Amino acid sequence: MIRVGIIGASGYAGRELIRLLLNHPFAKVTYAGSRTYVGEPLGKATPAFRHLDLKSSEINTEMIKENCDCLFTAVPHGGCMALAEEVLAGGVKLIDLGTDFRFRDVKIYEEWYGIEHVCPELSKTAVYGLCELYKEQIKGADLVANPGCYPTSIILGLAPLLSKGYLDLASIVSDSMSGVSGAGATAKPMYHYPECTENLRAYGLISHRHRPEIEQELSALAGQETMLTFTPHLVPMTRGIHSTISGKLVVDVNESELFDLYQDFYADAYFVRVLTEGNPETKAVYGTNFCDMTLRVDPRMRRVVILSVIDNLGKGAAGQAIQNMNLLFGRPETEGLLSTALLP
Amino acid sequence: MIRVGIIGASGYAGRELIRLLLNHPFAKVTYAGSRTYVGEPLGKATPAFRHLDLKSSEINTEMIKENCDCLFTAVPHGGCMALAEEVLAGGVKLIDLGTDFRFRDVKIYEEWYGIEHVCPELSKTAVYGLCELYKEQIKGADLVANPGCYPTSIILGLAPLLSKGYLDLASIVSDSMSGVSGAGATAKPMYHYPECTENLRAYGLISHRHRPEIEQELSALAGQETMLTFTPHLVPMTRGIHSTISGKLVVDVNESELFDLYQDFYADAYFVRVLTEGNPETKAVYGTNFCDMTLRVDPRMRRVVILSVIDNLGKGAAGQAIQNMNLLFGRPETEGLLSTALLP
Amino acid sequence: MIRVGIIGASGYAGRELIRLLLNHPFAKVTYAGSRTYVGEPLGKATPAFRHLDLKSSEINTEMIKENCDCLFTAVPHGGCMALAEEVLAGGVKLIDLGTDFRFRDVKIYEEWYGIEHVCPELSKTAVYGLCELYKEQIKGADLVANPGCYPTSIILGLAPLLSKGYLDLASIVSDSMSGVSGAGATAKPMYHYPECTENLRAYGLISHRHRPEIEQELSALAGQETMLTFTPHLVPMTRGIHSTISGKLVVDVNESELFDLYQDFYADAYFVRVLTEGNPETKAVYGTNFCDMTLRVDPRMRRVVILSVIDNLGKGAAGQAIQNMNLLFGRPETEGLLSTALLP
Amino acid sequence: MIRVGIIGASGYAGRELIRLLLNHPFAKVTYAGSRTYVGEPLGKATPAFRHLDLKSSEINTEMIKENCDCLFTAVPHGGCMALAEEVLAGGVKLIDLGTDFRFRDVKIYEEWYGIEHVCPELSKTAVYGLCELYKEQIKGADLVANPGCYPTSIILGLAPLLSKGYLDLASIVSDSMSGVSGAGATAKPMYHYPECTENLRAYGLISHRHRPEIEQELSALAGQETMLTFTPHLVPMTRGIHSTISGKLVVDVNESELFDLYQDFYADAYFVRVLTEGNPETKAVYGTNFCDMTLRVDPRMRRVVILSVIDNLGKGAAGQAIQNMNLLFGRPETEGLLSTALLP
Repeated sequence: MIRVGIIGASGYAGRELIRLLLNHPFAKVTYAGSRTYVGEPLGKATPAFRHLDLKSSEINTEMIKENCDCLFTAVPHGGCMALAEEVLAGGVKLIDLGTDFRFRDVKIYEEWYGIEHVCPELSKTAVYGLCELYKEQIKGADLVANPGCYPTSIILGLAPLLSKGYLDLASIVSDSMSGVSGAGATAKPMYHYPECTENLRAYGLISHRHRPEIEQELSALAGQETMLTFTPHLVPMTRGIHSTISGKLVVDVNESELFDLYQDFYADAYFVRVLTEGNPETKAVYGTNFCDMTLRVDPRMRRVVILSVIDNLGKGAAGQAIQNMNLLFGRPETEGLLSTALLP
Repeated sequence: MIRVGIIGASGYAGRELIRLLLNHPFAKVTYAGSRTYVGEPLGKATPAFRHLDLKSSEINTEMIKENCDCLFTAVPHGGCMALAEEVLAGGVKLIDLGTDFRFRDVKIYEEWYGIEHVCPELSKTAVYGLCELYKEQIKGADLVANPGCYPTSIILGLAPLLSKGYLDLASIVSDSMSGVSGAGATAKPMYHYPECTENLRAYGLISHRHRPEIEQELSALAGQETMLTFTPHLVPMTRGIHSTISGKLVVDVNESELFDLYQDFYADAYFVRVLTEGNPETKAVYGTNFCDMTLRVDPRMRRVVILSVIDNLGKGAAGQAIQNMNLLFGRPETEGLLSTALLP
Repeated sequence: MIRVGIIGASGYAGRELIRLLLNHPFAKVTYAGSRTYVGEPLGKATPAFRHLDLKSSEINTEMIKENCDCLFTAVPHGGCMALAEEVLAGGVKLIDLGTDFRFRDVKIYEEWYGIEHVCPELSKTAVYGLCELYKEQIKGADLVANPGCYPTSIILGLAPLLSKGYLDLASIVSDSMSGVSGAGATAKPMYHYPECTENLRAYGLISHRHRPEIEQELSALAGQETMLTFTPHLVPMTRGIHSTISGKLVVDVNESELFDLYQDFYADAYFVRVLTEGNPETKAVYGTNFCDMTLRVDPRMRRVVILSVIDNLGKGAAGQAIQNMNLLFGRPETEGLLSTALLP
Repeated sequence: MIRVGIIGASGYAGRELIRLLLNHPFAKVTYAGSRTYVGEPLGKATPAFRHLDLKSSEINTEMIKENCDCLFTAVPHGGCMALAEEVLAGGVKLIDLGTDFRFRDVKIYEEWYGIEHVCPELSKTAVYGLCELYKEQIKGADLVANPGCYPTSIILGLAPLLSKGYLDLASIVSDSMSGVSGAGATAKPMYHYPECTENLRAYGLISHRHRPEIEQELSALAGQETMLTFTPHLVPMTRGIHSTISGKLVVDVNESELFDLYQDFYADAYFVRVLTEGNPETKAVYGTNFCDMTLRVDPRMRRVVILSVIDNLGKGAAGQAIQNMNLLFGRPETEGLLSTALLP
């Protein structure tokens, strides 16, 4: 049994970790650290958990080392690196759902997040936890940087094409739409129900913090510097990310060949469902760890459109984090993650 | 392992049965009967099931008898009684999520549903599957009539009070609000998204078909004929029923005594969470088998208000049906039903 | 031309006043007082107003007296009474959308709102601005207390029955459901989109502040002290209130006679639509000043159910306030209020 | 007073025409043709119209010629061309909200819509009613083809750039998101509330019927054949289109110069609001005829992103149709269209 600790259990990613881990046959939540709810049962912050006994504890590395084999940090940037070295030194494996360890070059982190990295050496040992791409590295790691939600959907959508060199690297566009839970559990005017429902808007044009993370991974896949035009949108729904990605093809391939490429590329990836019929929809992955995708080619313009869909709290956060935990501890990759979506 | 058959797998209750049974450690769906999708994989009608292998079969009692220990029927009224005798004769236990076997008096069924009952004798052997009230009878049954969604929320909300004789039986009002999935999977103008979202309306005033079912059970609990004013409402959300029930108290009890009564009454009922703090909300039971409830007394008017909340597809349909199956087969009552709600 | 001032223009009632007054042929907004947005164009707080020139001013009674014939205050309780005497002394007619002048007995106000009333004498001159009931008194008034949203729907729904003495006054129940805009424009956790959408909950059981306001008016209509069991609910939609009201009849009347009563009672009330076919729905009054209602009788229990539906920001706030302004200034009652609902 | 006829009054564009025309000081609806509701008051199909006297009539060109100066057809393709010649011969001006007269080349129409055009000669006299681009031609016309909703948002968003030749014409991408009312008033499984809420999906990839319409107009603006990658998305909201358009710049211009270009280009366009601060959002144009837009330049990739937002039933259908009517009849362009959005 893996003894699991979570810091940030009242946030949305933290809640989802608990919800999923309750169904995991080989893991047990033994520690929930919180700044706000110390001593309170989890049901206080999250009415869905009213029947659970677990209480929040203070954030304390001694308690973590004593009670946990694996720690998930689901806190704002800066929160994980502050305790990473000590936790790892205690033999606890660490999976950060935040951004502290996602960048191979800490300078980019420091520039985009506006704070100094306190353990740049440790950063070099972190593995970017996109399981379908880095499975072997993850298996041997102690510290995993769980990818962002937008990056997960976009990188998975482009990986087969980039690995083959099929795309004009100056032509990539991703218009991505996210449900509101992606913005976190804190009430703000932009997410106030009457302003947010029946409303759609883009935000963070050109300069969204996920852009450098996406470009880092696209560049790694392409083997050269790769940029994209990335526009995120806020959509009136709770969960789900839909990335509509397009680019110019530099080779002469048809749709059917690209479907073959995608199906081969993801042949061993249980959680990627390449749809050769119909389009993906966010509700078909609601509450799950699936990434549904499809593609179309416009031969007139020789452009390809890829649709890549996840649950931002599932494959985009807590689901993938548990998938990483399974890999770290030698468990079956899908353990605890086999549920299907609520539809309706 | 219980081999389970489902008729009506593309409807909403049927889909929820499949979703839940996939997580049940001691049951396996071996047969999915459908009129519309014969030979098609379940993922055709329900994109959430795209990764499943199971295909729909024709509706055929021989196949059911051969492949199933337990059959769930989730079809319009008339659909279950047409095959009940044959299925039961084959030794298959039968749980009807429809209304064919919910009435102790088939005349009431025939009057309200406008069709003749084809097996009135069998009807007498059916147990009304409200697990918290009829657990022992269910354990020994072969045929269970799974309760309606509104009835479940209202009967559970009133049972402790009625069993004690605390209520003026001419004073009961239940205004109940349901998410749209309660209306089923068939597209109709009233449920067309642009007409339904941002809209709320009552329907079925005085004459909703769940009224006689509710009154049958309230009368049984009260030991005398009991009526209620029942007004259902359609609310722009997918899942959830919230019943706001009120009545006049005929005894002098205070709020605290009533909380004690409710907590005692449901002391052994895992799925009933009596909240002494805060109010229930539909999202805290989303996708689960819980019934959350609370109450308040207005001493000025000596009236009590009870709030009783379920997921109409969970405790109001598929969840309770599986709870019934567990009882029928001697399994732990909560098996396969321990998940918590998605919140958000 | 009526020169209109508004205090609280960035709140939801204030925004709706501006939206409606832009279509009023005989009124012009000349002053918008705000604490937060002084000097800013209205489009800053409300993107819908981006094309308007009007800027927010500080809250200053001299400016109001100089620039306005009529002032609307749409601010939290306490905000209107602080400036009422001075504004009225300047010859400006005053319509308060808040609660400062709604109570005939200031003690009730002080008890329920927890602050001392600073001008109790003035309070006696205020008219409760429920236009369909107090039209003549409003015409001669200087100070109008615009009714609350829940009270408007419930009082209009019950007025014909109470005026006739048809109801058992100890039997009245109103379960009322409100869209989220009723809670105001301030972001709070309970109204955070991901917690609020797909969710329904009751709140303020027994003790909601609108209860004494409703009971004051029901008592006035009935000619004796009248109480009710009032349970408000928060529904995942932006606008709309649906009150489902029921009570025991003490006379022997049938449904058809009651429809006649309601149609007679509201024969001159343009904004009340008594529906003899179909049920009201909130979207049919979206953005309008209509109150749609219907009723049903359950002869078995001799109970009547009344459904009464408004837009909480329309007839429940800004619409009715403009209707009051029209009456105060001798304009046609419907002027500027003739638009129909957006459906869809 | 312009006497106005509408065919298709129970559809969404038809309803919106009526809603808007009720506020038009110089137009009056004198005829509402319908196939389904002949003889019924409009309130039958549309509860928002319950207080209106107007009844639906059969579809009859004699009645139209007798009672109307202007006819709007808001019916599926084929419906307008069937009566266009006769209506025009009667001196009635005709505005088609459908697609029968949008194509300069009827062959494209016939290919994409799969039916023969019955009056190709008449087609040549039709003006494409995108008011901001073709105002002078519209003024002198008898037959106006009101543009599609997606085309309106995209063409307005690109017009300034294309007219200057600033874009690489092989690089244009538009990912457009639409509320569900864009799909019309007919209930279908894809728009069934429980399947549609909390769900987002793309549809019509590569081959959506609006593509040739958009490309026709982009080509006209660019002065050479122009294509785009167009992906429409269905979003869980009632109204609103948000087009996120991007393309490669072939000249060296910065953001500020492009803002100047857009503001100059639309200096006389009341309904286009170019936002130099903040992003457009669909709710800020809800129920209005506005098109809100903004842009950003990514100098790294020399790509520009344009956001262009309308209400699909307003500027995308009925609002623009009335704007066209105003131009046809020499009225002020904004008459009857000055309302602001409901927000919330």
